[in-house]
Amino acid sequence: MGSVSDLAVMDKAAQTLNTFQIPFEMHALSAHRTPEEVSAFAGQAAGRGIEVIIAAAGMAAHLPGVIAAGTTIPVIGVPVNATLDGVDALLSIVQMPPGIPVATVGINGAMNAALLAVQILAVGDSRLKAALQKHKNELKTKIISANNELKNISYPFKTN
Amino acid sequence: MGSVSDLAVMDKAAQTLNTFQIPFEMHALSAHRTPEEVSAFAGQAAGRGIEVIIAAAGMAAHLPGVIAAGTTIPVIGVPVNATLDGVDALLSIVQMPPGIPVATVGINGAMNAALLAVQILAVGDSRLKAALQKHKNELKTKIISANNELKNISYPFKTN
Amino acid sequence: MGSVSDLAVMDKAAQTLNTFQIPFEMHALSAHRTPEEVSAFAGQAAGRGIEVIIAAAGMAAHLPGVIAAGTTIPVIGVPVNATLDGVDALLSIVQMPPGIPVATVGINGAMNAALLAVQILAVGDSRLKAALQKHKNELKTKIISANNELKNISYPFKTN
Amino acid sequence: MGSVSDLAVMDKAAQTLNTFQIPFEMHALSAHRTPEEVSAFAGQAAGRGIEVIIAAAGMAAHLPGVIAAGTTIPVIGVPVNATLDGVDALLSIVQMPPGIPVATVGINGAMNAALLAVQILAVGDSRLKAALQKHKNELKTKIISANNELKNISYPFKTN
Amino acid sequence: MGSVSDLAVMDKAAQTLNTFQIPFEMHALSAHRTPEEVSAFAGQAAGRGIEVIIAAAGMAAHLPGVIAAGTTIPVIGVPVNATLDGVDALLSIVQMPPGIPVATVGINGAMNAALLAVQILAVGDSRLKAALQKHKNELKTKIISANNELKNISYPFKTN
Amino acid sequence: MGSVSDLAVMDKAAQTLNTFQIPFEMHALSAHRTPEEVSAFAGQAAGRGIEVIIAAAGMAAHLPGVIAAGTTIPVIGVPVNATLDGVDALLSIVQMPPGIPVATVGINGAMNAALLAVQILAVGDSRLKAALQKHKNELKTKIISANNELKNISYPFKTN
Amino acid sequence: MGSVSDLAVMDKAAQTLNTFQIPFEMHALSAHRTPEEVSAFAGQAAGRGIEVIIAAAGMAAHLPGVIAAGTTIPVIGVPVNATLDGVDALLSIVQMPPGIPVATVGINGAMNAALLAVQILAVGDSRLKAALQKHKNELKTKIISANNELKNISYPFKTN
Amino acid sequence: MGSVSDLAVMDKAAQTLNTFQIPFEMHALSAHRTPEEVSAFAGQAAGRGIEVIIAAAGMAAHLPGVIAAGTTIPVIGVPVNATLDGVDALLSIVQMPPGIPVATVGINGAMNAALLAVQILAVGDSRLKAALQKHKNELKTKIISANNELKNISYPFKTN
Repeated sequence: MGSVSDLAVMDKAAQTLNTFQIPFEMHALSAHRTPEEVSAFAGQAAGRGIEVIIAAAGMAAHLPGVIAAGTTIPVIGVPVNATLDGVDALLSIVQMPPGIPVATVGINGAMNAALLAVQILAVGDSRLKAALQKHKNELKTKIISANNELKNISYPFKTN
Repeated sequence: MGSVSDLAVMDKAAQTLNTFQIPFEMHALSAHRTPEEVSAFAGQAAGRGIEVIIAAAGMAAHLPGVIAAGTTIPVIGVPVNATLDGVDALLSIVQMPPGIPVATVGINGAMNAALLAVQILAVGDSRLKAALQKHKNELKTKIISANNELKNISYPFKTN
Repeated sequence: MGSVSDLAVMDKAAQTLNTFQIPFEMHALSAHRTPEEVSAFAGQAAGRGIEVIIAAAGMAAHLPGVIAAGTTIPVIGVPVNATLDGVDALLSIVQMPPGIPVATVGINGAMNAALLAVQILAVGDSRLKAALQKHKNELKTKIISANNELKNISYPFKTN
Repeated sequence: MGSVSDLAVMDKAAQTLNTFQIPFEMHALSAHRTPEEVSAFAGQAAGRGIEVIIAAAGMAAHLPGVIAAGTTIPVIGVPVNATLDGVDALLSIVQMPPGIPVATVGINGAMNAALLAVQILAVGDSRLKAALQKHKNELKTKIISANNELKNISYPFKTN
Repeated sequence: MGSVSDLAVMDKAAQTLNTFQIPFEMHALSAHRTPEEVSAFAGQAAGRGIEVIIAAAGMAAHLPGVIAAGTTIPVIGVPVNATLDGVDALLSIVQMPPGIPVATVGINGAMNAALLAVQILAVGDSRLKAALQKHKNELKTKIISANNELKNISYPFKTN
Repeated sequence: MGSVSDLAVMDKAAQTLNTFQIPFEMHALSAHRTPEEVSAFAGQAAGRGIEVIIAAAGMAAHLPGVIAAGTTIPVIGVPVNATLDGVDALLSIVQMPPGIPVATVGINGAMNAALLAVQILAVGDSRLKAALQKHKNELKTKIISANNELKNISYPFKTN
Repeated sequence: MGSVSDLAVMDKAAQTLNTFQIPFEMHALSAHRTPEEVSAFAGQAAGRGIEVIIAAAGMAAHLPGVIAAGTTIPVIGVPVNATLDGVDALLSIVQMPPGIPVATVGINGAMNAALLAVQILAVGDSRLKAALQKHKNELKTKIISANNELKNISYPFKTN
Repeated sequence: MGSVSDLAVMDKAAQTLNTFQIPFEMHALSAHRTPEEVSAFAGQAAGRGIEVIIAAAGMAAHLPGVIAAGTTIPVIGVPVNATLDGVDALLSIVQMPPGIPVATVGINGAMNAALLAVQILAVGDSRLKAALQKHKNELKTKIISANNELKNISYPFKTN
């Protein structure tokens, strides 16, 4: 993440990775304040066995793109809402030039970033594929039971 | 893709996949006009050995999200500029709710979608990793030689 | 609605339908988490005698469009303000491709969605036509009496 | 429509109504230049047996809202792209205050406005219900045959 | 104003008119809920000796345009921030079609609407011209004395 | 106007003033390139008998606000679409701080600016009041005859 | 600054200039309420030895552009978020016409405005160059130590 | 510049620097395709005697920010309109985090970027100060003579 203040948003990514039992590191690296550290991190990631990178940043959110410039590992970008409802971060992350993609998720979408990382890791991993399917089923179950609870709310003309 | 008219944009994705020698299928499937086909495609993709899906759509671009709803395979979304400079498609694709991520690239970003697919497939594939590195080096070489050509443009006070 | 949290907005729709004595069902169905349930609901609605569907969702609000894809019953879409002041939901709902309309109301416009449903049901129903006219007259009366109260507010140079 | 220049957009609505054999009138009425005519049209529509109204306008598009103010018949609003990519018209039409809904379709969405009108008229009309289902099947067939044509496009690594 | 809730914003307009000793009326009239009253008000204003009209509304703010449609008196529009930071109201008011102008001020700009009304009335009125000049001088004096107070704030390297 | 290139837009204002037989001057004055001339123009306008000022500018359109700062005469601002569809100019003109109003018309709204000027001048001028009413009637007649021409367009199911 | 209320934002600029031991003045000058004072300030700044000007304003933020019109000293503009999340101020400041640049920083970017001023003054000043380098190193150190603290946060599967 | 295609925009910057007889270099350097070259360029610029850097880029325009991260020399950013009317580039450049400013000019504002560079260099250079004043006078003369030409355009009621 580009700043420690992004932890409030990114905690959900960490929790989701834990749920899937995916080992992960967590760094505060700034494309603007510690460019060499970012560059070193990106350049060494593949060699250190890192397989997916999630990068979160707000405002002129350069971190995901700068990391993507330094590696061929998939980089997932999370636009953080620091100013302008996060639209500045969204455009700064998603509108990458041809050749250097960043897989962008929604504004403050930390949980989805982690799930996307798990989906990528699951490409060749049947345990993770099964875990993702189980997680998807749980989401479904939650909505279905919420739907059932809606039936307990009564209005005079409500029929279900 | 959501409509055959998207082929003008998505041809670059096909060409990029060819460059990397990645076998791929191409479909026109509409979340709104052929929902059962989309649903069948998404539900059967994993079983058929598909490892990544790229979904392109314009306007209220539901295709990537609807496919993501039906599979745990990574889905890459390409917002196509059909109206509103593509902002409607971008928001319809990237702002997915927690639980169902879509890896969104820039507006009309077909080449980046294909590269991201290759990066995902490269996670466990050293041939692809090397090919990506080679591609990245070529991009670099292109800019460096463009930079050299800039030296041939002369202005009275230009010094390089 | 796409999530139970939308009930805070959609309660006004339920209350309005009650006012008009229109029987209705209420469901939490997610285009992304329970796609089969959405598809089943849409496909069976006409056969079950449902005549109008109101679908509310926020963010990349696919629910109204996905339901409209599965039925020829009129679908009314309510963009819910979950992020970006609801602009993402508005564009995701209203910018449907040719062939699959969604009748979109304003952001968080639950009451208007219900009134529009009543207007649609009133096409062949003189009781509802009269009830709508009565409701319209009440709105008018409320503004007229508010206007009268404004006359009691006095400023030195105010003349009415 | 608010101006005869809108006919370029609204011709598709007329053609769609023809396809469904729905009798219709076509008027140029301006909320700003002929307010009495708009008001008379809205006030007399129900009595003349009109069952749905489609109103198209650009810029500060007041026509749909002003007609909706004068009737309880469902009013479908079509934002026309005259300036600002049609965003001004979209917001002027869709953001109606509580009590007076306008069923808004996408920018320049004339065909969808007509289809929505047919869906509304079909609520109590089994001939129209069947015609809508047939139309939906045709849309589906068109995409499926487009999908088949895509199979004829060949790239070295394309496998379908 | 389109709704009594706009009084929170428009009170400043009333106070400003008082300051300039301009007699005024205050009405709650809704373009959508009391269209006949709006139309009657607009049509009779000139005959009743009204010289300028200030109309405030939020959302799909049709009131200023609808009044302007019914009179040749100058109409000043005040976009009220009810939703979307007032951008919907701004565009609904300012983007009037050729032939029917609305003199639009900033979002929630009630004081400026009143000052603009005074400027219009001052065209042929030397008392008002002098009062406006006096008011302008007071604004100036206020900033100049604020500027002087800034001199009392001290920072180690501040030199004034 | 802020630049001679704005004449393409502002010609309609000149033509409209001619129609109403309103004597007028035309200047190219730049808030940024000729600030003293702008300031002198604004400061001397009232003394020279000028009664209304129309100021047109694009981009960071400061001209209307800077003129309004230097006079108490009503200033009408016309946002010119030079970049960003004119949204930059619109916001730079309309969002004036309390105390210094600019009467803003729509983007490229030169004709409406002139009509608004005529409305302001008509406040104490019965000849202009009559001319405005006549102009309004002509607009109405034009739409009514356009409406009549629409009757000549035939579609199989069109009934008027 | 255009208004004393901007001090809440601009205090950070003053503190940053103090840190670098740069003498500075602080003024409240309004492009709209005290145009002569602004003009005098801009015209006399160079002669008084002022080398850089920072101008902050909100809404239709004309102050930076108007000062830039009156001097050839570099002018740094700070868009203040008073309305519309500061987008109106940003566009009013940054979109200057050719010939009169304003060096714009981010919305509420007072600290960056001061740093940019220091960078400009440092062009021929080795003490300031060294101080800037030291400041940059401190920013870096802060992130690096924040990064180290992140290592103390533990999640079951976190590995660093 | 981030891509050679930006030369179409940036040629005006080169021409402006020539007018002021400022020696300059021109490079194509991509934050994403040649990150090491960008980093080396930024890190060595001060030592090579470079005093100001102008960086132009479109889309997710990271180049100016990444250069600013690597130097304490003033960096001027030019948002290039490649997509979304340049709004993506504007936000990606101007919304820099505290500590690393980029002096942003308007979209496609190459001439203003060069003038701002000259203004910065002129801080300690009386020849450049005089040249800037002369340039400013020429801009003024051009508008004044354009203003004079406007007098030759005649309309029946035009009086100047």
